[in-house]
Formats: sequence, C-alpha cells, structure tokens
Amino acid sequence: MGEHRFLVGLIGSGVGPSLTPALHMRAADRLGLAYIYRTVELGTEDVSELLRMAEVLGFDALNITHPVKTRVLPYLDELDDLATELGSVNTVLLREGRRLGRNTDWTGFTRSFRAGLPDVPLGCVALVGAGGAGMSVGHALLTLGVRRLRIVDVRPDRAHTLADRLAGLFPASEVTAIETGQLGPDPDGFVHCTPTGMAARPGLPFDPGLLQPRHWVADIVYRPLQTELLRTAAARGCRTLNGSGMTVHQALETFTLITGRTPDAAAMTEHFRELVATETA
Amino acid sequence: MGEHRFLVGLIGSGVGPSLTPALHMRAADRLGLAYIYRTVELGTEDVSELLRMAEVLGFDALNITHPVKTRVLPYLDELDDLATELGSVNTVLLREGRRLGRNTDWTGFTRSFRAGLPDVPLGCVALVGAGGAGMSVGHALLTLGVRRLRIVDVRPDRAHTLADRLAGLFPASEVTAIETGQLGPDPDGFVHCTPTGMAARPGLPFDPGLLQPRHWVADIVYRPLQTELLRTAAARGCRTLNGSGMTVHQALETFTLITGRTPDAAAMTEHFRELVATETA
Repeated sequence: MGEHRFLVGLIGSGVGPSLTPALHMRAADRLGLAYIYRTVELGTEDVSELLRMAEVLGFDALNITHPVKTRVLPYLDELDDLATELGSVNTVLLREGRRLGRNTDWTGFTRSFRAGLPDVPLGCVALVGAGGAGMSVGHALLTLGVRRLRIVDVRPDRAHTLADRLAGLFPASEVTAIETGQLGPDPDGFVHCTPTGMAARPGLPFDPGLLQPRHWVADIVYRPLQTELLRTAAARGCRTLNGSGMTVHQALETFTLITGRTPDAAAMTEHFRELVATETA
Repeated sequence: MGEHRFLVGLIGSGVGPSLTPALHMRAADRLGLAYIYRTVELGTEDVSELLRMAEVLGFDALNITHPVKTRVLPYLDELDDLATELGSVNTVLLREGRRLGRNTDWTGFTRSFRAGLPDVPLGCVALVGAGGAGMSVGHALLTLGVRRLRIVDVRPDRAHTLADRLAGLFPASEVTAIETGQLGPDPDGFVHCTPTGMAARPGLPFDPGLLQPRHWVADIVYRPLQTELLRTAAARGCRTLNGSGMTVHQALETFTLITGRTPDAAAMTEHFRELVATETA
C-alpha cells in the first residue's frame, strides 16, 4: 500500500494565518514524504473533543497553540520531562491510541539562540513577558547557562509566579521578578516574549533608551521579522536575534518527532523568509 | 502556500482491508496531487458524529460504505437526483460547510458494464440480491435499457420492496420480484449482488445448472475476482464480467468529484489487479 502518509493538524485560536503548515509540508516535499497539515480553529469543540476527533480520523500528530497549550494537559497520556516542567505542550503525538505531549517551543528557542547568538554573555538576562512563551524561553535560557534571570511583566503577579517556578527548577541560578521600572542597563541581554511589536500591536515593549552597544536583544515576535524593538536595538549597536529561528526550529523539531526524518534547517529557514516576505509584500 | 492537498476518508464497518484508499492515492500520485485517504471504522461514534469530525478537521470528502449508505442521508444538506432515487450515497463532498451526497456505485456499475459487456442482449435480466447494492445495480441496469428485470432475494420481502421502488422509477420497464425457485433459464443475463462467493462466504448464489452459452453473467463480488459463479459460468460458455470494474469505476468517479481531475482508467484497473493479486498471493 506504499509508504505511510502523514496527517497533522494545528489546534488553537486564530490559527488560519500560521506559517507552520506550509513549513511542514514543504519540508515533507523535499524529503519525498506525503504530508498534509490542516489548521483546526477552536470553536464549538474544545481541545479535548478535537483531540478525540483527530485520533478517530487517523491523524498522526497535532501542534497545539494559544490558548490551549496548558489546557490540553489533562487529556494527554504521557508527558516527557521537559513538557512536565514547562507545564505546556505544543506537540501531541498520536501513537497506538496514546497521546504523547512534547514541547518544541523550548527546543526551537534553544536552537535558534545557539545558532544566532552563540557567544554572547549570559551572566544576567532580562526576560520581558511572563506568559506561556516566557515560561518556555526562560527555561531555555537557564538551561543555556544564564546565571541571573530577571523577569518583567505588565502583570507583576505573573512575573512572580514564573520566577518562583523557574527558581524551583534551577536552584543554582538566581531568578527574580522585577518591576518594569526596575529594568535597567545592567543585564547582558534582553529577551522579549510579549506580543508587542507584532503588526497588529505596534510599539516597544520597554524603553529602548537603556540599550547600549554591549547588549544583545532577542525577540520572539516574527511578524514582522524586524520589530521596532530590534530595529531600535540594531540602530544602537546591539546584536539582535529575530523570532524566525524559534518558529523554524520548533517546526523542524516537531516534524522530526512525527516523521523520524530531519528536514534541512537552511532550506526551512529560507522557506520561512520567503513566506514572510510574501505576506508583507 | 502551494496547491490544495486532498484529505479523504472511508466510513463504514470492516473498512480496514478496503482497496479504495490505495486506488485513490495511487491515482493522485500519477496526477501529481497530494492526497491522503484514511479508513475510519464505525464504532463508538456513529456516522453523524464522524461526518461532523471530518468537517471540523478539514476533510474534503468521504466515502460511505456498509452499513451506513442509507443511514447517513438525514445528515446531508443536498442529494443529487440519482442519490435521491437510489436512497443511498457512497460519497459525501464537504464543500464550504455543506455536505453533498453522491452515489458512484451506480456510475461504477454502469461504466464497468458498458466496458465489459457492451453488446449483450438486455431484454430480460435476473438480478440476484435486493440489498443496497441490488438497488444501485438494478437502477443502473434499467437505465442501461433492460426491459424486464426480475429480482430474487433470499428474503422475498426485500425483493418485492426493491421491485416496487424500481417499477415506480422506470414505468416503461417491467420489474417484478420472483421466488428463488422461479429463477429459470429465460433471462438473457444474470447479475449477482449478494456477498456469496466472497473468500469468507464461498459458494454459489443460485443453481448454475440453468446457465447456457447464450447467457451472460455479471458478479459484483471482487474478492476473489473469479468467483465460483463466474468460473462455473465461463466453463459453461457464458460471457462474464467480474466485480473489479465496478470498484475501479466508483473509485475513479469519486476521485473525479473530489479533485476535478480524471484518473487514467486503464492504470487504475491495472493497479487494482496488482492489489488483488498481492492479497491472494
């Protein structure tokens, strides 16, 4: 009956414009794999019902995105250690009737950071944004070796909650919640994990006046690739990392988990640039 | 985002061994179309729930088979004239939130018959088996020009019901239910529409002693391709038609409805022969 054909979905709110389906399908085409990736909007059905539907109809896996990355957890049969620590998944593998939760956002950020800012100082880092992305990115930064992590959020309670969780997981590091007003020039680098700077939410997530040439700045926003924050940072002489790498590497990692085949990262990155260029053209 | 990728399912009982998914996917491969066809076993979910699931998860179409070809009707938004007359569908197109019912079993038999027995006499035909397949095949035979159709079933009530329905649809023809014992040598041809003769149900559906060289015999069973009925008929000098053509042509027609592209019938037929040969090897 020929080789297996892969059927994958993305469950979340506002998933229609996601570039992930195109990334997966083009990667499959390059590897000669039959692959369909459908977006599934949360609506009448909640995530538990959509999981069940995907199982019944023969899906191989699902990506899970906002706002159900955590809400999906009770409906899974197994989480790996990382997904357990993060308390969220962005990937569910459907294997022999079991639902296996994984988190490749973490992997995506880690690989993107290593590739894009391989040699920056990691003594002290400011993390701006303590939502779900902040959790994955904060965990990744501490795993990468950050010694002191300072977390800021417009909602101080979220910053404190995240700081407490990460401090518990990384007792050798110093993880603290700070107020927005306390964000000074002393960190080595800044990582931005809020939606500010997206096309629909223009603006700056913090005062760029504190940026100096010795700072590095990473943004996880990728629409547009060059956010106002990154443009300003670059103009002030900072090294920068945009959000494309995290998106590409999470897609690459999820694709690998699903198929057992590893896509070409450079080709996937180039495809992502084309997709973003087409969108903004 | 590239060309559309087609996602199709088959809903029914015991659908796992169906050859239709392989026929569709190979046809798509030959046309360069991305295509996934999954089998979905009726079980905890009934056909109405599975229809809803397929819609939510982005399926383009479904094949519907035993035992829900009629049971599915209340859940469809539109039937074409043929499906309405037959009272059953084997294909549901999912288009812009609407569920369109079609019946390509009829088309499959009609095309197979025209290709395989193009010039046989159609004055009087005996139809053995008055189930769902009998309805589609009986309707097709009358459309092909059969003047007198005699219907036999082990359950006489089914034969009468089918005869009444077909008589109402084809008032210019003579459609009658007869008892098994009344099945004599006077028809021009015999069409067999019961499961008897399948690998799991060996045997003969009627006494082959009445067959003469002037008769033609069509069987819709295709596992095996050469049923005991067809072997006996051929040995007695009859022209015969096996069930492969109906299966191939229903798949071809459904594929065309879904994709708007017409597969190569000869290649699909050859593929079907390979699949059956592999199974029985």
